[in-house]
Formats: sequence, structure tokens, C-alpha cells
Amino acid sequence: MSILAVGSVAFDTVSTPSGRVENELAGAATYFGLAASYFAPVRIVAVVGDDFTAEHENVLKARGVDTRGIERAPGKTFRWGGHYTENFSEAITDFTELNVFENFHPQIPKEYADSKFLFLGNIHPTLQSTVRREMPNTKLVGCDTMNFWIQRTLPELRETVKKVDVLLINDGEAKMLSGESNLLRASQKVLALGPQALVIKHGEYGSTVFFREGAFGTGRHPFRAPTLPLAEVVDPTGAGDSFAGGFMGYIASQEEINREVLKRALFYGGVMGSFAVESFGPRRLLNLKRGEIDERFGIFRELTHLD
Amino acid sequence: MSILAVGSVAFDTVSTPSGRVENELAGAATYFGLAASYFAPVRIVAVVGDDFTAEHENVLKARGVDTRGIERAPGKTFRWGGHYTENFSEAITDFTELNVFENFHPQIPKEYADSKFLFLGNIHPTLQSTVRREMPNTKLVGCDTMNFWIQRTLPELRETVKKVDVLLINDGEAKMLSGESNLLRASQKVLALGPQALVIKHGEYGSTVFFREGAFGTGRHPFRAPTLPLAEVVDPTGAGDSFAGGFMGYIASQEEINREVLKRALFYGGVMGSFAVESFGPRRLLNLKRGEIDERFGIFRELTHLD
Repeated sequence: MSILAVGSVAFDTVSTPSGRVENELAGAATYFGLAASYFAPVRIVAVVGDDFTAEHENVLKARGVDTRGIERAPGKTFRWGGHYTENFSEAITDFTELNVFENFHPQIPKEYADSKFLFLGNIHPTLQSTVRREMPNTKLVGCDTMNFWIQRTLPELRETVKKVDVLLINDGEAKMLSGESNLLRASQKVLALGPQALVIKHGEYGSTVFFREGAFGTGRHPFRAPTLPLAEVVDPTGAGDSFAGGFMGYIASQEEINREVLKRALFYGGVMGSFAVESFGPRRLLNLKRGEIDERFGIFRELTHLD
Repeated sequence: MSILAVGSVAFDTVSTPSGRVENELAGAATYFGLAASYFAPVRIVAVVGDDFTAEHENVLKARGVDTRGIERAPGKTFRWGGHYTENFSEAITDFTELNVFENFHPQIPKEYADSKFLFLGNIHPTLQSTVRREMPNTKLVGCDTMNFWIQRTLPELRETVKKVDVLLINDGEAKMLSGESNLLRASQKVLALGPQALVIKHGEYGSTVFFREGAFGTGRHPFRAPTLPLAEVVDPTGAGDSFAGGFMGYIASQEEINREVLKRALFYGGVMGSFAVESFGPRRLLNLKRGEIDERFGIFRELTHLD
């Protein structure tokens, strides 16, 4: 079933120890859409400027991503420049030019109204809430956010989080949102805000999904998925959005939604994130084969499963 | 089969957000011995001072730990004082009084000579090498170290590492020892120093075992074990030594040593580490039941295994 993803399309200029790219097609909606496209039909709502060409659009279309919801606005597309600390633990922003993204007001094409899955990318929580309200008949809503919104728009963010099924954030964001330095207590406080499940991403250490009691069936414990130890991380930009794409994509591909599906989705999230970091921008996500994805899923299983 | 453990016995004074203890029986050999005692017979070689009483010794004896190798020297037992940063990521040392530990020269009682497993706790690498040479007929040798020895006695440490089967260190130590910030490349460089397997501990994110090609049977990948997300970490002191005790203890309890055994041992290491941090000092390790250990092993499995 189809997934509607709302978020940024951007041109990134990124330096890492492996090299540098300029104005690479990127942004949360791009990474998410490409990663999810291997599992389910994806529709994007975003805004771009005059500099977004047919060639750029074809990158998405070639993966079957529905681009009718990408609005063209006069001006330039959102641009971000950054580099990484040596162990890739943190992105250092060199510049941010919001451009047309500054006045982004997501417009959902009527053809998208029947989407059963919704992913709210990292945008102002009030915009996330507006989109959420316009899509009342979804089966599952996933949501991302970041420190910026936690610090500046906490009341609005709480309203958003109350209405989503799965919140996907990283350790630092979970601790900031909850005011708790212990991850289990942080997860309990975040779940108390409303979501049915909380996915916390631990970077190179994988991810954990915490469930609200009784949500998605029964079970006592959280669940942890690994990442793949890689000898070379080329560019970690977009790993989290690609993770979300694999996670939501796998869920959308399944008949039922239950804890076991969410656990597998966590593995597929890790798998797509591990592909994303193997190249600059979303390049590695353009020409994967489903067999490669399943093979890596098998490696993730070998990495963690006893006989 | 019996495990011989060489390391420190100490009295710790520790402050954490959960409280404070003074002169608590601790030290690497204590944590290791207590944790391993649930799986196999353990023999300790250490040094203590006049202040080490029969009552202290009985804590070990009550768990069946053989204390004949604990040497009494005139003076005071090694004392360490410390506290933790808020998220427990780092121990801050308040004081270190080496006392009798400063002149520790491990003496192996002849009754210990038939030990089939050897654990070289975190002491000067030259002492580790000496003990290693005196125990040539072991089935498996495990070894710990720390940043202090990597920085100050690297040539000696390389000699030690060359002669052990499994090195157990944490992320920071692996990166420092290898000069690599990428964990997979770091593991490759450390394995090139000689050990058959390298266990890297990631704190609250679990641990990974990397195998030298062909060591302990065949297989393509490393293996990762989780930790248990705990709502309250009371005192993380000794978690690494307790991990090593569970890891080595489980291996010593098995007929054969192969990759599958080492993978399970990694789980048992995490299990014993997770118990250790639930109380001050090694208190939680004094009265466990094997059933509790196996139940937690089951939780670790549920945390990571898909149906």
C-alpha cells in the first residue's frame, strides 16, 4: 500500500574523508522515498525551486516515486552544506540556505488522499500536525523531528507526537525530548506523550524500538536491531531518512501490522541505512536489487542471531 | 573446567546518582571471579593488604571461588575512589592508592597449574606475559587492558596480545590500540596483532566479537550481543570485569570451543554485566540463581531475535 512522505528535497554540498560532492540531490524526502521505493509505492510532497530540473525529477521517477506532489516555487531549492567529525558522530553544518523551503506549506494532491501510510519528515511540527489532520484514514503514521524543533517549538511538537503511531528519533533527541539521560526512562516518557511505538536510532550501534503497553499486540520487551560494521563510511548524510524509508516501506508491504512486523521493519531500516552511507548522497539507493537487500537482511540476522 | 584469573582485589569508594559506598570489596578479580563462579570453578591470583579480613575472603569463598592464590602483603589493599558523569559514560577517578598492588608480582600456586582457562586482568602487560608463559597448557586465554597501558607500555602490550586467544576491550581502547576511528578497521588491525578473537564492549549498546579468519571454525561475519535497557544503573563499576567473567565462565563450562560457543558467551557476558550494574559493588553477583541468569539470557534473546 502507498506511503505519502512529506519533507525536504535539497541540494547538499558534503565533505567527508572519502571526498566531496556539490549540489547533490538529497533531502529527507529524497532519501526516504528512494529507500522505501524498494518495498511499496511512494508519493512525495515537497517544494523545490527553479533549479530543480527534469533530470533531478527523473532520479525519483526512475525508482517509481510519485513526484506529482513536488511543488515548484520561484527561487532556489533548499541547500545544505556540511562535513563530519572524524568518527562521523556528528554533522557540522557549513551553511543552510532554506530558500523556497522557508515558506513550505505542504499541499497534498487529491490523488494522494488514499495513501494508507504517512511519513512526516523533519519539518515544523505545526506543518506536521496540519498534514496529519488532512490524512485521517491512514493505517500508520511515522514521524521524525530534530533538536531544533525540540528546543524551539516543544508545545507544537508535543501536539504532533500525540497524533502519530511511530516516532523515529536518535539518542540525543530522545534524551532532549524527555529530559532523561537514561534511555529506558527516556523512552517511557516519550511514549507517554502519545505514540504507540518509539524507534531510537543509535548510529553505528543500531536501533531500538520501544512499544507502548499493548500496542501492536503484546510483548514484554523492547527490540534491538544492529547496523552493519562497515570498513568505510563514505557519507552518513541521509542515513536516518533511509532508515525511516526501509522501516516504513517494509511495514507498508505487509498485510498486517504487529510487533513482529515492526521488528523486521527495524532490521530493514538498518539495512537501507547501511546502503545509504556507502556512497555520497543517495547514489547507492538508485540501483539496488531486491536480492541485495534481502542478502544484507540475512547478514544482519547472522550478526545477531544465535543458532 | 577451572579458570585462573589474575587481577586486582580492591576496596572502592564510589558515588553515583543512586548513592555512595565506601571501601566496598571490588577489583577486577573480584567481579570476574564472582561472575564466572556461576559457570565454572574459579581460582584467583591477587594481592591484598592487612586490611583484607576473613569476612572479605568469605564473600569469595561463599561463591566457591578458590582464594589460595590471594597473597597477603604488609600494608593496605589497593583503594580506588570515583564517581560517574550523568549518563555513566565515563568514570571520574577521585583517588587511586595502589598500596600493595604497586608491587604485585603474580605467584601461581602449584595447585592452580592444571587450570585450563586463564584470564589476564588489567595489570602491567609484562606481568600478563609472565603469567601467560607460566601457563602454557591452557585451552583458552582471555585478556583485558586499558588506555593507561596502551599509552605507556605499547611494545609490552603488543607482546602480550600476540599470545592471547581473546582480547576484551572497549571501543575507545580498540580505537587507541589500532589508531583507527572506524571500528571494523580497528578490529582488523587489533586481530593482526595476534589474538584469535577480539571482543569490543560498547557500554549500553552491547558488544561485538570479531574473529580472525578461520579461528574457532568458519564464518563470514562478526557477531553482536545486546545489553539490557535498564531503568536504573546503580553503579557501573565492574561491569566490564563481570562481562569477562560471564564470557569466560560460559566458555569454560562447554565441552568444545567454537564460534557458536563464543557467541553465546558474548550473551552471557552481557547478562552478567547487566546484573553487576544493578547494585553497588559486586553485591548483585553474590546471590544469583542460575535460573535468574538463564531467564535474563532469554530476555537478551527476545531483545534481538526475530521469530
